[in-house]
Amino acid sequence: MVASVAASSSFFPVPSSSSSASAKASRGIPDGLDVRGIVAKPASSSGWMQAKASARAIPKIDDTKVGLRTDVEEDAASTARRTSYNQLPDWSMLLAAIRTIFSAAEKQWTLLDSKKRGADAVADASGVGKMVKNGLVYRQNFSIRSYEIGVDKRASVEALMNHFQETSLNHCKCIGLMHGGFGCTPEMTRRNLIWVVAKMLVHVERYPWWGDVVQINTWISSSGKNGMGRDWHVHDCQTGLPIMRGTSVWVMMDKHTRRLSKLPEEVRAEITPFFSERDAVLDDNGRKLPKFDDDSAAHVRRGLTPRWHDFDVNQHVNNVKYVGWILESVPVWMLDGYEVATMSLEYRRECRMDSVVQSLTAVSSDHADGSPIVCQHLLRLEDGTEIVRGQTEWRPKQQARDLGNMGLHPTESK
Amino acid sequence: MVASVAASSSFFPVPSSSSSASAKASRGIPDGLDVRGIVAKPASSSGWMQAKASARAIPKIDDTKVGLRTDVEEDAASTARRTSYNQLPDWSMLLAAIRTIFSAAEKQWTLLDSKKRGADAVADASGVGKMVKNGLVYRQNFSIRSYEIGVDKRASVEALMNHFQETSLNHCKCIGLMHGGFGCTPEMTRRNLIWVVAKMLVHVERYPWWGDVVQINTWISSSGKNGMGRDWHVHDCQTGLPIMRGTSVWVMMDKHTRRLSKLPEEVRAEITPFFSERDAVLDDNGRKLPKFDDDSAAHVRRGLTPRWHDFDVNQHVNNVKYVGWILESVPVWMLDGYEVATMSLEYRRECRMDSVVQSLTAVSSDHADGSPIVCQHLLRLEDGTEIVRGQTEWRPKQQARDLGNMGLHPTESK
Repeated sequence: MVASVAASSSFFPVPSSSSSASAKASRGIPDGLDVRGIVAKPASSSGWMQAKASARAIPKIDDTKVGLRTDVEEDAASTARRTSYNQLPDWSMLLAAIRTIFSAAEKQWTLLDSKKRGADAVADASGVGKMVKNGLVYRQNFSIRSYEIGVDKRASVEALMNHFQETSLNHCKCIGLMHGGFGCTPEMTRRNLIWVVAKMLVHVERYPWWGDVVQINTWISSSGKNGMGRDWHVHDCQTGLPIMRGTSVWVMMDKHTRRLSKLPEEVRAEITPFFSERDAVLDDNGRKLPKFDDDSAAHVRRGLTPRWHDFDVNQHVNNVKYVGWILESVPVWMLDGYEVATMSLEYRRECRMDSVVQSLTAVSSDHADGSPIVCQHLLRLEDGTEIVRGQTEWRPKQQARDLGNMGLHPTESK
Repeated sequence: MVASVAASSSFFPVPSSSSSASAKASRGIPDGLDVRGIVAKPASSSGWMQAKASARAIPKIDDTKVGLRTDVEEDAASTARRTSYNQLPDWSMLLAAIRTIFSAAEKQWTLLDSKKRGADAVADASGVGKMVKNGLVYRQNFSIRSYEIGVDKRASVEALMNHFQETSLNHCKCIGLMHGGFGCTPEMTRRNLIWVVAKMLVHVERYPWWGDVVQINTWISSSGKNGMGRDWHVHDCQTGLPIMRGTSVWVMMDKHTRRLSKLPEEVRAEITPFFSERDAVLDDNGRKLPKFDDDSAAHVRRGLTPRWHDFDVNQHVNNVKYVGWILESVPVWMLDGYEVATMSLEYRRECRMDSVVQSLTAVSSDHADGSPIVCQHLLRLEDGTEIVRGQTEWRPKQQARDLGNMGLHPTESK
């Protein structure tokens, strides 16, 4: 009867960034589709031009947003954002205020749900979660498995994004949405339409360990005229501390022509009852990622080819696989000493069975030792066709928690 | 206080197959280590020579063994095996008899534990399983996740083997065995020893779907003088039907020199209390895989390099990753129409960060349409050093269960 987010990678021709496009596309919906976002927008596009002209023109993820805030907190945060956009106050003070709100919201969230979580940790662990918050939020717990961690003993960002996918699909299943394909409505099936991801923003607060149980809350929302938003909010079940947040935009593709499609009104009518009014948990204010600078001293990894098992049921490379390919061109010294804090991805083309992909990473050179590192990324075919543009921000790894007793989680060593 | 199986890949110089070696190494322990296996052996090595001289000299996995059989069933199966080895009866009749035993054992297992399983499915799903069968078997449930399935909508063999690893490590954790490394005892830590896998046999009965909950039972046992065996038995929680069985042999490696080591008596004393008396669930009768024939018309995939996240906490490529590399040289028509039924792997060398690997697959040419296909595999470094020898048997895929309603499991379509 209704639809939700699909698990798939995407073909999404995001045009070059322009001020009008930025103002129009709150979650990065393509201009041609006349998308109107639902999150707060600046009063004028000139403000964005100013922002874009600032250092490195890097679309910084606004980390003021949190998942499932109360209305009061939401209003406070909204006011703070509107103030910042219209009056351009001191950014550092604003950021501090925002962090206070964020912290308070997280604490309240923790307190309000602490009792429930204890029960949920067991109840949800059957592998299928449940609907909460008036049936508009899907909740599921995940135990971090040993094969999801790396040599640093913590979960990889790919593993965590796989959990995003799993909750999205279980959400679809839970609301009865598996008509002819993952997340498809009857009207979509009738029109041969599937969901593909267009944009993904991720912020990782801390990377969990093997055995940690994390809880994911996810919901869908309207995103302009032709898109659908999906958000995730992840926290540690035991400590209540935030783990990760994610925001994404999904659009429609014709299964046969592999071209993007407008969102038919009939489909919109099917999915709207399941839309949450919540804001996105992360917001890049609709800014597009800059074109990859081929003159930069990029690290390049050539000859990447999809494996048979990289293909999902939509018969293209799964979007999480792209994250792995992006990391293939990141220098080892970064993988050893730093971790992804934020990631922005714009999916622009599908990758098929015969594709041969290049992964390019340009590392910012102006970072002091120990400070965050910003990278620009590009996945492209050998003929130059762009598949994914990406940007990541890396921070020094959290202090190694090797207790000389590798299997023990810090909380178990007491 | 005690030890169990580690999650790691291996360096394991299996010598060329010889009759004496075969008779000595029930699970494929290297000759130099003077290993005495615990599973049934032939009365004389000449029997093996005869077997080896038979068609294609392919070590066929003996699928008569099942997990956790009753003593009566075990005796029956053992007798059948001994009979077959000594008297060489009609193989087809013997196989039929064995299948009957297997079927009866599975049924009894299902009946005996059907009540328990209902409760287990919830209780175990917290991500940590429990010890059963007098504390000698570790049991854990897994819900098959969407990112573990492929375009054919079923779990990959790699995903299932990842579950093997997870249960092994949780078993270690459960019996208190995380001293300085996955599965390490205090004496191992003192001697800088780690576990590495030497051999793996897998038989997949049926591939589960997304959302299916499977239950894994795993246990460790003695395996000759210098090895430890680990077995897995997997069945579907809802139907009780068998999913998969696995048998492996693990040996010790010096963490610093990366050379194999004998099993010190002090370590043996630590782990022996946790050994089960159960036979291995699969048995190749100690036969070694033949050397890969370079003159065969092999499919080759060159330039495979480990990714940062392929390394485990033992700082080498995880053994399950090798399975993925092996499948990289399997022709697409096979991946499309066939599925792995059995797999034998001999791990011979570690793979490190700077390794560049070739994957070779030789497909048997004497298979009729729709009949099983046998493949020989080799992973090697560019200088020819062997990393893994493998052999797989493929059967036509089970009838596609596309119900036109992809999210629905067959059992939900009623």
